[in-house]
Amino acid sequence: MSPHRGHAIRSRPNGRLTARIVRSMLAGDWLEEFWAWFAERSERAAHRVERASLDELAGWSRDARTGDYAHHSGKFFRVTGIDVHVPGAAVPRWSQPIIVQPEIGILGILVKEFDGVLHCLMQAKFEPGNANGLQLSPTVQATRSNFQRVHRGKAVPYLEYFRDSARHRVLADVLQSEQGAWFYQKCNRNMIVEVDGDVPVGENFRWLTFGQLNRLFGVQNLINMDARTVLSCLPFTGFDRHPLSDAAEDDFRLALARSCSSAEGSLHPMPEILSWITGIRAQSEVTTRVVPLAGLPAWHRADGRISHESGLFFDVIGVDVAAGSREVTGWSQPMIEPIGDGVVAFVVRRIGGVLHALVHARVEPGYVNVVELAPTVQCTPGNLRALPAAARPRYLDTVLDAPAEQVRYAVALSEEGGRFYRAVNTYLVVEADVEDDADYRWMPLHQLADLLKHSNYLNVQARSLVACLQSLSAPSVAATARR
Amino acid sequence: MSPHRGHAIRSRPNGRLTARIVRSMLAGDWLEEFWAWFAERSERAAHRVERASLDELAGWSRDARTGDYAHHSGKFFRVTGIDVHVPGAAVPRWSQPIIVQPEIGILGILVKEFDGVLHCLMQAKFEPGNANGLQLSPTVQATRSNFQRVHRGKAVPYLEYFRDSARHRVLADVLQSEQGAWFYQKCNRNMIVEVDGDVPVGENFRWLTFGQLNRLFGVQNLINMDARTVLSCLPFTGFDRHPLSDAAEDDFRLALARSCSSAEGSLHPMPEILSWITGIRAQSEVTTRVVPLAGLPAWHRADGRISHESGLFFDVIGVDVAAGSREVTGWSQPMIEPIGDGVVAFVVRRIGGVLHALVHARVEPGYVNVVELAPTVQCTPGNLRALPAAARPRYLDTVLDAPAEQVRYAVALSEEGGRFYRAVNTYLVVEADVEDDADYRWMPLHQLADLLKHSNYLNVQARSLVACLQSLSAPSVAATARR
Repeated sequence: MSPHRGHAIRSRPNGRLTARIVRSMLAGDWLEEFWAWFAERSERAAHRVERASLDELAGWSRDARTGDYAHHSGKFFRVTGIDVHVPGAAVPRWSQPIIVQPEIGILGILVKEFDGVLHCLMQAKFEPGNANGLQLSPTVQATRSNFQRVHRGKAVPYLEYFRDSARHRVLADVLQSEQGAWFYQKCNRNMIVEVDGDVPVGENFRWLTFGQLNRLFGVQNLINMDARTVLSCLPFTGFDRHPLSDAAEDDFRLALARSCSSAEGSLHPMPEILSWITGIRAQSEVTTRVVPLAGLPAWHRADGRISHESGLFFDVIGVDVAAGSREVTGWSQPMIEPIGDGVVAFVVRRIGGVLHALVHARVEPGYVNVVELAPTVQCTPGNLRALPAAARPRYLDTVLDAPAEQVRYAVALSEEGGRFYRAVNTYLVVEADVEDDADYRWMPLHQLADLLKHSNYLNVQARSLVACLQSLSAPSVAATARR
Repeated sequence: MSPHRGHAIRSRPNGRLTARIVRSMLAGDWLEEFWAWFAERSERAAHRVERASLDELAGWSRDARTGDYAHHSGKFFRVTGIDVHVPGAAVPRWSQPIIVQPEIGILGILVKEFDGVLHCLMQAKFEPGNANGLQLSPTVQATRSNFQRVHRGKAVPYLEYFRDSARHRVLADVLQSEQGAWFYQKCNRNMIVEVDGDVPVGENFRWLTFGQLNRLFGVQNLINMDARTVLSCLPFTGFDRHPLSDAAEDDFRLALARSCSSAEGSLHPMPEILSWITGIRAQSEVTTRVVPLAGLPAWHRADGRISHESGLFFDVIGVDVAAGSREVTGWSQPMIEPIGDGVVAFVVRRIGGVLHALVHARVEPGYVNVVELAPTVQCTPGNLRALPAAARPRYLDTVLDAPAEQVRYAVALSEEGGRFYRAVNTYLVVEADVEDDADYRWMPLHQLADLLKHSNYLNVQARSLVACLQSLSAPSVAATARR
């Protein structure tokens, strides 16, 4: 007897979920208790991170033949080299160190309704690369090596909700890429899972509404990269008239609310956007070859680190870590330390009353599909002096020279502190009436949200900016920014 | 001055395109002229294909160190080896020869309205692997080496409509994978482009309605693989009530018409389907390593070909080709020659009056994202005697033992004749009330069509079957099957 016989089939999900998310976005004035908890967690967390020579890291060793660095278990990740050809580009060929981490990890946020309002279980988490100790991270942030307990540490709390997600309500579940400039074909599973029933809350965890989280997006180096990418996958656009339209305090926020409504139009219909992406992917002749780390042209190993001869781009360094709040009590590892802070910006404009962001079809060596949609500007300005003039990003000056009243968001946020040492970018949303260009397209948030249901469309920086832009829809977010 | 200032933004495309496609599906009784033309083209096309030793192919040579076969130009494709690990699978580890073709080609069908009815410009094309000389192929079927004219042949006709598609109306444009068992990470650009204006028609080309094509799907080895995959990407589901519902001749066709309507429901909502795919991709620990062809365990080179020691699976052979109707007049190349014909089948059932197909999340070594959705059954039964019993496909007996009245479609069709020598599968659509299973899900056609807008979801065999299933919606298709 079939389990389906007589079952009514289900029609498409309606906007009820969006309504619940919006209700949670509108709830969140009280942050005093959060700050008291976060300050207390920060005091309790006793961490020490010290730089160490790459060649003296406990548990790691350098392969004599290839020069690659790997963990003795064969797990976690490996530092190797790549050789990249991009015919016709401003920089048509280069070599660089890169992290290979073939394991797919889980980045998961648990949500639950309290008194009719959705809350996210967020974690105050230490990572060795964090500039400021703790940051706010997803409920679960675990590599496969973590959850198979290669380092014989404590079990990852709340992991079972995500590994056994079919028992709960899955709001988002999609594989997404990470930094294509520093990772070779890495991706993680981004999940948002809603539970009923009791959830015990550990001392490093706290329930926050989407409204509270949106306000905390105004604080520098607080919401970590993993939390931002998971939050960007929230299905928040399933509405005919977005409820936030009624709460909009000004024309910008009204255009932003419209941008979130899948019933609003767009400058380009989706088939046209998809055809543009297909065309760029089909025409890109990028070749990325994994090569030994030893002997990479222009990269040198000295003083226990690997650096570019220009002194720019990034170093590969080692760190020794002592920490109390992780699964294990101490460890050593290689990390990537970027030289200089970056700029990650969406140029936005209102088209037909609907806010559109200018996305860039960007080639990075580590992408599975060669090209992903990136922010309008994504670069480290300090590196430009080592590059040909044609490598200067098309809209960098638009962003750097924007008058203050056109800058809608400007907050320094960190990249993944588990692999990158103090990697900080200033995330910007800038309104400007610029022209687009062959490799750029104007898209409203509801189109970006449609693409975010699938893998390999938006890169991690663009996903961060989508989450930042979403956060602006909360009323008076600027007024609550602190620190 | 911005080009967008004052521009009305566009809302989502409506069902008008679907209505036009359906009108074309309902037009197509007259095939006499087609058969006269096709017979004439077949007579005129003087081809000769002879088996030749892999080691004596003009323009090709075997690398002394790796044993790989490559063209002297470095273009077209290369035959090398892979070493595959799939922990926990029925066959957890194996090695095999494989074709590496990193170039992305174009498979494009040009469409145009005549007297209000859409027509597709189809080509009678010779390929060396075709069992029967000519097959019906897309307007354009060209590798990048073809259109960069590496072999200094004739220009590819109609190519500019696809390379410069922004000047026309793009109905579909998406990168799709090909055989993951024989190609390493190959994909092609699948395009359907509508033009106005005059299109000169070459002698190997002919305008056909969707209705005529649907009838021709009933003919064995006629519609080639490239035409099938392009036609599967047709956006035919944008309707509230599918117009074919009114033309349905029986309950099966009514359920099929409903299956094409995006307003109808589905057993699983799309977020649940996407989460299922994500989970399987995240948990698959497949490792595929490209290795030299020389010294692959269990594969031997003898008599100018490479074969498996069991005599099963496939051989790598060489062919010398003399042909009149291709871009060049003669050439030699390696090909894959499968041993024995295959079975490719969708098990379908009506759930809530809507036809659902049972898709299988299948691991193949050549997929970029490890797993793609495949037919319910996809195998070569003859190979099973060399494999462990657990490798027998879950629903193979359901398909092979189905009573005749449950078999809705059964036609032998060829795989890509440019790389595969006489690779023939019987494509089947079988109605059966079976249970699903962890790696299988019931999905209506409108959900499959939604996934077909994106890359890496449906494998090439599933796409072929989607096109076969679509073809059944035409009235009385069975009655017109011939040959």
